[in-house]
Amino acid sequence: MASRDRAGIYLETIPVEEAVAKVAASIDRASFLASEIVDSRAAAGRITAVPVTAVLSSPNVHCAAMDGIAVVAGSTFKAREGRPVRLAKGVDYLPVNTGHPLPRNPFRADAVVMVEHVRFDDDENAFIESPAFPWQHVRRMGEDIIATDMLLPRNHRITAYDVGALLGAGVWEVEVRKKPLVYIVPTGDEVLEAAKRPKPGPGQVVESNSYVLAALAEEAGCVVERAAPVKDDPDAIRREVENGLKQAASAVIVCAGSSAGTKDFTRQVFESLGDVLVHGVAAMPGKPALLGVAGAESPRPGALLAGAPGYPVSAIVVMEEIILPVLAEAARIERKPRHEIPITLARRSPSKLGLVEYLRLSVGHVGDRNVGIPLSRGAGNITSMSRAQAITRIPRDREGVEAGEEVAAELLVPRDMLDRILLVVGSHDATLDLLADALMGGAEGVVLASSHVGSLGGLQALKSGHAHLAGCHLLEPESGDFNFPFIKRYTPDLECAVFNLAIRHQGLIVAPGNPKGIESVADLARADVRYVNRQRGAGTRILFDYELERAGIEPASVNGYGKEEVTHTAVALNVAAGEADCGLGILAAARALELDFVPLARERYDLVVPNALLADSRVEALLTMLGQPQIKAAIEAQGGYETTLTGQRMQPGMGLGVG
Amino acid sequence: MASRDRAGIYLETIPVEEAVAKVAASIDRASFLASEIVDSRAAAGRITAVPVTAVLSSPNVHCAAMDGIAVVAGSTFKAREGRPVRLAKGVDYLPVNTGHPLPRNPFRADAVVMVEHVRFDDDENAFIESPAFPWQHVRRMGEDIIATDMLLPRNHRITAYDVGALLGAGVWEVEVRKKPLVYIVPTGDEVLEAAKRPKPGPGQVVESNSYVLAALAEEAGCVVERAAPVKDDPDAIRREVENGLKQAASAVIVCAGSSAGTKDFTRQVFESLGDVLVHGVAAMPGKPALLGVAGAESPRPGALLAGAPGYPVSAIVVMEEIILPVLAEAARIERKPRHEIPITLARRSPSKLGLVEYLRLSVGHVGDRNVGIPLSRGAGNITSMSRAQAITRIPRDREGVEAGEEVAAELLVPRDMLDRILLVVGSHDATLDLLADALMGGAEGVVLASSHVGSLGGLQALKSGHAHLAGCHLLEPESGDFNFPFIKRYTPDLECAVFNLAIRHQGLIVAPGNPKGIESVADLARADVRYVNRQRGAGTRILFDYELERAGIEPASVNGYGKEEVTHTAVALNVAAGEADCGLGILAAARALELDFVPLARERYDLVVPNALLADSRVEALLTMLGQPQIKAAIEAQGGYETTLTGQRMQPGMGLGVG
Repeated sequence: MASRDRAGIYLETIPVEEAVAKVAASIDRASFLASEIVDSRAAAGRITAVPVTAVLSSPNVHCAAMDGIAVVAGSTFKAREGRPVRLAKGVDYLPVNTGHPLPRNPFRADAVVMVEHVRFDDDENAFIESPAFPWQHVRRMGEDIIATDMLLPRNHRITAYDVGALLGAGVWEVEVRKKPLVYIVPTGDEVLEAAKRPKPGPGQVVESNSYVLAALAEEAGCVVERAAPVKDDPDAIRREVENGLKQAASAVIVCAGSSAGTKDFTRQVFESLGDVLVHGVAAMPGKPALLGVAGAESPRPGALLAGAPGYPVSAIVVMEEIILPVLAEAARIERKPRHEIPITLARRSPSKLGLVEYLRLSVGHVGDRNVGIPLSRGAGNITSMSRAQAITRIPRDREGVEAGEEVAAELLVPRDMLDRILLVVGSHDATLDLLADALMGGAEGVVLASSHVGSLGGLQALKSGHAHLAGCHLLEPESGDFNFPFIKRYTPDLECAVFNLAIRHQGLIVAPGNPKGIESVADLARADVRYVNRQRGAGTRILFDYELERAGIEPASVNGYGKEEVTHTAVALNVAAGEADCGLGILAAARALELDFVPLARERYDLVVPNALLADSRVEALLTMLGQPQIKAAIEAQGGYETTLTGQRMQPGMGLGVG
Repeated sequence: MASRDRAGIYLETIPVEEAVAKVAASIDRASFLASEIVDSRAAAGRITAVPVTAVLSSPNVHCAAMDGIAVVAGSTFKAREGRPVRLAKGVDYLPVNTGHPLPRNPFRADAVVMVEHVRFDDDENAFIESPAFPWQHVRRMGEDIIATDMLLPRNHRITAYDVGALLGAGVWEVEVRKKPLVYIVPTGDEVLEAAKRPKPGPGQVVESNSYVLAALAEEAGCVVERAAPVKDDPDAIRREVENGLKQAASAVIVCAGSSAGTKDFTRQVFESLGDVLVHGVAAMPGKPALLGVAGAESPRPGALLAGAPGYPVSAIVVMEEIILPVLAEAARIERKPRHEIPITLARRSPSKLGLVEYLRLSVGHVGDRNVGIPLSRGAGNITSMSRAQAITRIPRDREGVEAGEEVAAELLVPRDMLDRILLVVGSHDATLDLLADALMGGAEGVVLASSHVGSLGGLQALKSGHAHLAGCHLLEPESGDFNFPFIKRYTPDLECAVFNLAIRHQGLIVAPGNPKGIESVADLARADVRYVNRQRGAGTRILFDYELERAGIEPASVNGYGKEEVTHTAVALNVAAGEADCGLGILAAARALELDFVPLARERYDLVVPNALLADSRVEALLTMLGQPQIKAAIEAQGGYETTLTGQRMQPGMGLGVG
């Protein structure tokens, strides 16, 4: 299979495992197995290059394993309870402490009697009432380690325990595999060097992939050298790749430019230095992977040449699924396997036939199962990796996965963290981040993972058992009540409690100084006003539609009604950047980006909790926190929040309460 | 519960979890949470001390997610298949590459059409046959990261992915938890400094525990300082503990001297610098754990003071079960949890009521279950840790575990290694180490774990399904045949195949020059000859008993008949050290320790394989290897081996073959 690229070059879609096998078979494996000598004291984590043989025995003599008296077992055979045998000091016994060599003069001791089992009548005579058997309480010479015996085979990962065995065996240094050197070359006209702490202009980006790949390589036991970013210039890229090969890198990774577009030069660079083996794999993200091997004329024949795509998640997939597996196998580095757990998907996620999709998931344990909420699928979104607790692979022969489907997922976090994760699904509010931080400061270390699908989406998630809590701010205009009417309508069978998080101020977020003079929703029908909307199902969208209706304005007459964002801050960001003139949102979002705000409404933002989860320790930690004065103060300090109801259990018909 | 110590001080037996809780409640937790600023590029693995907020948005403008043309979605609504819409360059569209900002002049683009879906008639006119929807193929401003949003909460372990998010968000440095400093003080009159590469005299030992504990602490994310070894002198120990506290250590660990014997000074040192909280825990090994907290007058009030016992496994248990858990919780370092798997025990193992025993296991996957073979229980044997693949805890209320019992065990190795482990149980031969090393050099990386229980023990293990292979060299004197008669007698139902490993020379191992002139077993009845024996069930023991019988010698008349060792090398070591004059064993063992050898017999050492495992890839790897000339050469090079039958399948009645 191959898909035609714009530049006329075909990108293949080779299955990832085939790509790994092909590359592994082509690199010069011997060059990956160089060795070096290290001090045994600092050898933990390294891989032996040759078998290690003990030099000393341990213990090096028979010695006492207990405090007591050393005796000749044969001289004690007649001892019985009530018929003690008398032993004379220096003749039949000598006192020993744990670790002491057994005496060999004037008698050859072969057993120890614990001090607790000896009766001393005076300094000379000792009495015992049970016989000692040969080598009783004796650590025998060589019991632990025998000189000349093999201590460790080659290709063994040296543990902390092994360090003790090496030193005890008198092995002061060990020959271990050299850590493979990975040379990383960031490229791109638009990238800026992070070390310079740049201020990116429009369309410029901070180069970060090289640092992510470096951290992954180091975690896997490699040594990393990183070049300064190189422009999109084939000669400059070639010079840096050669530079890496001259430094005897086992692998040179070129970041970005691995596809087949007009500005993708990695392929031609690799072709000039060796052979391209794979261009394009059946992976999403990660498709434009480029893999080759340095040629015989290059400074390091047989080295792995890898082109990682420019999108961060694509680069990570290529690194974790192809580059590191090849290195691990060739250089015998040991990658920590991830836990695999079954996960129930909270939402369907489509996928392209013929490609394996690496779907990032936010995961929590709800009821008796692990629930996974698909995160952003965009390969450009690094936060879809940093916010993920797990990854699942949608197979090549599937066109997606369904909501409620159970899939196998690989955990990215320690398994025991799952029990500490609190899944909050629903409407977005910056206060949730504030709580997330505060909860991580608590003794339980509760991890609040929030997913923004709007208020109705949150109720739906609770109904399906896909979340612990839902954040809701749904106004029923007829009654003036919040949330309860919607719970009754959309999730009538859900027995739940409702707690107020805060009363929020919603309004029109506008540019500083409100240059277009927007005073009410009526102004949004003006041709010169560009609006940015929230997604369907969001409480703010429902509020907006209600306000439009009240003002008698058709949605179609609002310029930008179709452009949806999923958070308040994203709306505010559009206004801040001049992409829109106005959007409905909360004061906190306007404040954060120093925008102006035209107040429109006060609303109740509540947390809905299924009754079954009220005793859950994570939920309890959150609810307890909402009662704390310093949390309320922090919520108010954001601006646009009132905490008169915060933490209180709401009842139907309360509206905004008496506050 | 308390048990009286010899020195008159009571050691408690506090449950480990209580000890941890008691210590955790007493240390000064605030002092464990110091922070420092690190460069975000090098922040992977560190723990955030404060929440981290994004400075930049990413992307910082709406930009193209694909190569193609940027358009205003509204101008494309009429496009249909067969009814293309014409777009004019610079008026209706502008070309864009992935990552480019969407044009804002002369029109404000809000969508991208992929180049594959555009027909260019000339350089000016483009035609599309389906409408673009708003924000199609657009990476929206802030889609990944929004400035002012919280990126990471406090107490979050920064991943490689997070490094990308931090840099993308313009966060150049982060405030992270300082790694806790652990100060380790090795003590003991008998210990020698490993750095000096010493030659230990009788009863002296190389100090290694401090390096093992240091490696464990570093693995867990601590910084370690280690003092030079200190003599058993309370003042000197006190000076070093104070030294550690002056350096602001979060924990000071004194190695050895933690019990209550006459030379155990750690308790009095701790009492002079603070409070002792726990002395003695219900753990085996690890009972003499000593735990305290530095006092208000000390240089670092509230620091953890820990006394680790002198036996290496005891020290490791105290480190892993008490010290590190306290540090992890207080300093928010994250310990990697171990995999827990069910394991069927191959042997019973007694245990003391009232203490949790940490039993080290050699583990392999045999048939459909994981089999665990208990390793040496001696707390002094570091190799019982370094050779273990798992640990199981025998609960306080049990007096041991039974053979065949299924227990929960914690894996010390990566889970996928289990499938690579080949369990060889039976007679000991150094050739097994040679094979273990060669197998680790092979592509499959087969881990040969051998357990020495004698030839009959090996057959028993096969019968119970507790091993993949058994090493046997059992002579039936009447027939002159090897192994088959015993298989028929002891494991009649086991369908198995027998492969020869080598023909071995057995003989009397004697001191260099054979000073006692031992020429045959008849000499072993002499009063001046001290013998060292092998354990019951060992093929060599059976051979010895047979030779004694042939010579008409009573076992009781052999001086040392009751002293048993379980390997040939251990026997040779006793001779080398002058602990015995003679032992029956193989030439290789004598050669390894430069001893003399009086030949007695040739025997066949075979590997017995259940038929059901003949197709097992690990077994196949081993059998294939036995056919290789270089392996045969290596076996012969050990001395005392013939490889005429090596790798061949044996049949009943073959004896030593025609070789």
